[in-house]
Amino acid sequence: MAESDFQRDTAVRRDGDGWTADLQPRWNVGNNPNGGYLLAIAVRAMGEEAGRPDPVTVTAHYLSPPADGPVVIRTQIVKPGRTFVTVMAEVVQGDRERVRVMGAFGDLAERQGPTRVSARPPDIPPPDQCVGLAHLTRQAGRPIPEVMNRFDIRLPADSPWGRPGEGDPLEITGWIRFRDGTQPSALSAVAFADAFPPTLLGSVAAGWVPTIELTVHVRGRPAPGWLLGTFRTRVLVDGLLEEDGELWDSQGRPIALSRQLAMVLSR
Amino acid sequence: MAESDFQRDTAVRRDGDGWTADLQPRWNVGNNPNGGYLLAIAVRAMGEEAGRPDPVTVTAHYLSPPADGPVVIRTQIVKPGRTFVTVMAEVVQGDRERVRVMGAFGDLAERQGPTRVSARPPDIPPPDQCVGLAHLTRQAGRPIPEVMNRFDIRLPADSPWGRPGEGDPLEITGWIRFRDGTQPSALSAVAFADAFPPTLLGSVAAGWVPTIELTVHVRGRPAPGWLLGTFRTRVLVDGLLEEDGELWDSQGRPIALSRQLAMVLSR
Repeated sequence: MAESDFQRDTAVRRDGDGWTADLQPRWNVGNNPNGGYLLAIAVRAMGEEAGRPDPVTVTAHYLSPPADGPVVIRTQIVKPGRTFVTVMAEVVQGDRERVRVMGAFGDLAERQGPTRVSARPPDIPPPDQCVGLAHLTRQAGRPIPEVMNRFDIRLPADSPWGRPGEGDPLEITGWIRFRDGTQPSALSAVAFADAFPPTLLGSVAAGWVPTIELTVHVRGRPAPGWLLGTFRTRVLVDGLLEEDGELWDSQGRPIALSRQLAMVLSR
Repeated sequence: MAESDFQRDTAVRRDGDGWTADLQPRWNVGNNPNGGYLLAIAVRAMGEEAGRPDPVTVTAHYLSPPADGPVVIRTQIVKPGRTFVTVMAEVVQGDRERVRVMGAFGDLAERQGPTRVSARPPDIPPPDQCVGLAHLTRQAGRPIPEVMNRFDIRLPADSPWGRPGEGDPLEITGWIRFRDGTQPSALSAVAFADAFPPTLLGSVAAGWVPTIELTVHVRGRPAPGWLLGTFRTRVLVDGLLEEDGELWDSQGRPIALSRQLAMVLSR
């Protein structure tokens, strides 16, 4: 099997009472690592610390963007438990905390209880009838952030992203997979939840849309293949907005619900 | 002005390097304080510590339900900032941590930036044409938790709550205010986000639906009067579910978006 960029670049090593990792510039947006990549690294250390495979709910507060290079991840077991282990993590670079994360980790394969899903995956054409995000980005004359080369993201040719109608939510819907062929996992769902470009890009003037807080609920382990993601903003008020995301796997099962609070900054 | 139950019962006092509060049994569900009430107390201490009026995004992990009586709230400034101050809090009772909270605090009145709201408040009859939740609960032969007496919650007479149609989300929509006439605030929006009964009650067999994690984004300070709340569950899988909430004020403005991850337990 080919080595996986995502597995290699999110590797964490135990170091004293914490963990270390190396942020790789190939996941950058401009000079800073993408938030979903950063969160995946923290979540990997937290999951190791918890001894549980699945990040059932994780919340990151982004404090100060790191550069690529080494980071230390200090983890604390907040509460050991039979069902869930609650863990906190501080991601530190150069004596400055960059991200604070809280999460509950468990084993989704062990869960038992009622199932009732009324949500449905978005109905878009299959990936081979969609258009590459990189192509659309180039067409729009926008720079392609390095992280975009790690993902294969495809949108419908008539995607309303960037040109929503009156009263429509700001929305982006498309297929996503790793470009190197890595199959999706619960951990990669955390990264995918922050891999699409901002919902408001092209619709609302913004230089940068930094994430204040991102919460991801991983609800299932994805089947191999493409994931289908949809991200929607319905409430942009005074420059603050939510992005509500859903990820569905190739079997049509819901894999993750995400919500982030972000802020519009002008250039 | 009459003394407010909510103001009095969420009071926090500085005590050494932390805060103390007294959990009042009038906010109980059974023998434990309601999660929104608990979160409001933590948020009040965190806001005082931050020196900022508004809980812009707060996330609580519920670790172990406390009883009524004294709690200690240990707060830590994670990151001071111009725009937002990030704070962590541990709510401790009897040497055991009960809730861990992370939040970013700011001043919503100072925010500037674009506004674009495509979400709309739910369309239900006015409060005086709705039915009291306490009345409906009594009619269904269910016990009325003590906390329900603190709120005046009214649902449409034909509310689908408890009997959704095939393929419908599990949903509860209704008006809410404090029963003692206290006007709503950004802080009370945090409590209101966990004041409605579970979306799945009556539809899915459940003895108890404990919250694992609750995140509330407060997006505006509410105008006086009723708030309109709607809470929806679209993905219940193996006993894990989200509850997505929206709160709207009497001027039709979006006040808060909430999401919790909860778990179905049988009695």
